[in-house]
Amino acid sequence: MDYDVPLEAFQQARARLAPYTRHTPIAPWPLLHDDAPAGLRLKLENMQVVGSFKPRGVCNHMRQLAPEQRKRGVVAASAGNHGLAVAYVARQLGVPAIIYLPEVASADRVARIQAWGAVVVQYGEVYEDAHKMALEHAAAEELTYVHSFDSEATLAGHGTLGLEMLDDMPEMDCLLVAIGGGGLIAGIACLLKKINPQIKIIGVEPAGAPSMYRSIQAGHVISLPEVRTIADTLATRSVAERTFALTQRYVDDIVLVTDAQIAAATRWLWSECNQLVEPSGAAALAAALYGAADMNPYQHPVALICGGNAPAEPVLAAYSGLTR
Amino acid sequence: MDYDVPLEAFQQARARLAPYTRHTPIAPWPLLHDDAPAGLRLKLENMQVVGSFKPRGVCNHMRQLAPEQRKRGVVAASAGNHGLAVAYVARQLGVPAIIYLPEVASADRVARIQAWGAVVVQYGEVYEDAHKMALEHAAAEELTYVHSFDSEATLAGHGTLGLEMLDDMPEMDCLLVAIGGGGLIAGIACLLKKINPQIKIIGVEPAGAPSMYRSIQAGHVISLPEVRTIADTLATRSVAERTFALTQRYVDDIVLVTDAQIAAATRWLWSECNQLVEPSGAAALAAALYGAADMNPYQHPVALICGGNAPAEPVLAAYSGLTR
Repeated sequence: MDYDVPLEAFQQARARLAPYTRHTPIAPWPLLHDDAPAGLRLKLENMQVVGSFKPRGVCNHMRQLAPEQRKRGVVAASAGNHGLAVAYVARQLGVPAIIYLPEVASADRVARIQAWGAVVVQYGEVYEDAHKMALEHAAAEELTYVHSFDSEATLAGHGTLGLEMLDDMPEMDCLLVAIGGGGLIAGIACLLKKINPQIKIIGVEPAGAPSMYRSIQAGHVISLPEVRTIADTLATRSVAERTFALTQRYVDDIVLVTDAQIAAATRWLWSECNQLVEPSGAAALAAALYGAADMNPYQHPVALICGGNAPAEPVLAAYSGLTR
Repeated sequence: MDYDVPLEAFQQARARLAPYTRHTPIAPWPLLHDDAPAGLRLKLENMQVVGSFKPRGVCNHMRQLAPEQRKRGVVAASAGNHGLAVAYVARQLGVPAIIYLPEVASADRVARIQAWGAVVVQYGEVYEDAHKMALEHAAAEELTYVHSFDSEATLAGHGTLGLEMLDDMPEMDCLLVAIGGGGLIAGIACLLKKINPQIKIIGVEPAGAPSMYRSIQAGHVISLPEVRTIADTLATRSVAERTFALTQRYVDDIVLVTDAQIAAATRWLWSECNQLVEPSGAAALAAALYGAADMNPYQHPVALICGGNAPAEPVLAAYSGLTR
């Protein structure tokens, strides 16, 4: 598949996102323990609205819907964060939304999505099951399906992260990005390489869900028989043709991290930076901290902390229970 | 008590802190729910090393110790965050440290302090009990006592927060700051008013621990018979003469917030910004969100999120337990 996204698409996306999403900060580097690569900094996209990068792609997609499409409504399937993003954007734009989640989705995620007024349907064991059922629903009732990574509008929206990082840190010489379906890295890599081909882009996948890694090795999109990782929002069996094509063209390397490394990076991010994130949000950092990616060549590397929706409810409930 | 801290003390403190503490970011404002005062922004000092503002004062103090004092070592008493700061700075400077904590201090806080190589002694019901015993220990063994708020070096160190905020957001017209012993607000208010007397400084205390509020009403430092609040690091029975004098002179108003408001603000900070903090860290925000402070006069108000050390261990332990 010969595929590319023009630079203008990213710039237009940025304008569409501005009223509904945040320009997230790049954090200064910790001074605590010296167990991290020199100069490594963190793009804190866990501070994005609804706690992940997902609203960027969704907002760029949904703002381009025709009035008739908006009126009928949208359907989406998600392991959690995409559903939250669709529910949030739908509420902002006054569009009805139905979100399919796999049955394992946490009660906290379901409640957060419902709080934005979306209808939640839980179906199947994994994302792909919910995805199939959601597609059928959308076709049967002529609703717009908002895919979580396989659409040009979504890629362009996610790529706006690259524009922000270039504004805030033009000296960046390496970026680590986690891969689930590949929409995040495809969008950012495409944008960054068009502007500065010198920046190295390193993709990071869980060792138990190497859908892009294996596809690049094979030279075409493959489907994994099973995926197993604590980074549940990265547990995708198959990437898309679009995200594969852009990754093959623009991403310099893909490395794998173990669940133990992801868990350790999640703990590190809390103890060193007081940022509590879901495991997927710490996967890129894990590659920088524990050797999967060779950081020696870089002076100004950045790890993208792509999501933050950890199950903190027990901590908060304990506080509420203590009030006098 | 006629007391003041000269501007140079803050500037010198900033230079002493630079190698050991972070310039923390002021976060952009959320776009989610519209339940917050227009323009309100957050100074995220929960991202400071060891998770609170405390290392600023401690570092400024300990870097001024004589070589003989450094060699003998330091003693401190703390409800948690000050002890962590002393342990961290002592480790950086190669100084032995003994930290007294009340018996109610969480296991997580004890472990964090010990991880920096300090000796922990748990004694008494509240901070004041640990404080008395630590003072005796310091006197008996001729060790330097590092007070958590009652020292000019500490006030000047905390005041560097004001210098950072003026650099990053010179248009700031109001600042909300939580009060425990008063060292934080005294240092910042003294600094800010010397540079720009137009900035309104509003102190925030838990309704169950109004030590500064009552002292200002009385016109002198009073001691509360008991303190009760979920914001444990603000639960101080008595402020100091120094912090009282500066607060009386430089702080415009003090307001009280309930535990329920503090718990709600803690929850808000997680759901809107993905920042998990201890209740004390959300007290200033609670005053802005729920009516204790009138925010209408201000266009560029800032709430200082002063600490972040929430008990997140169960969340992290669950991740580690899930690795395959």
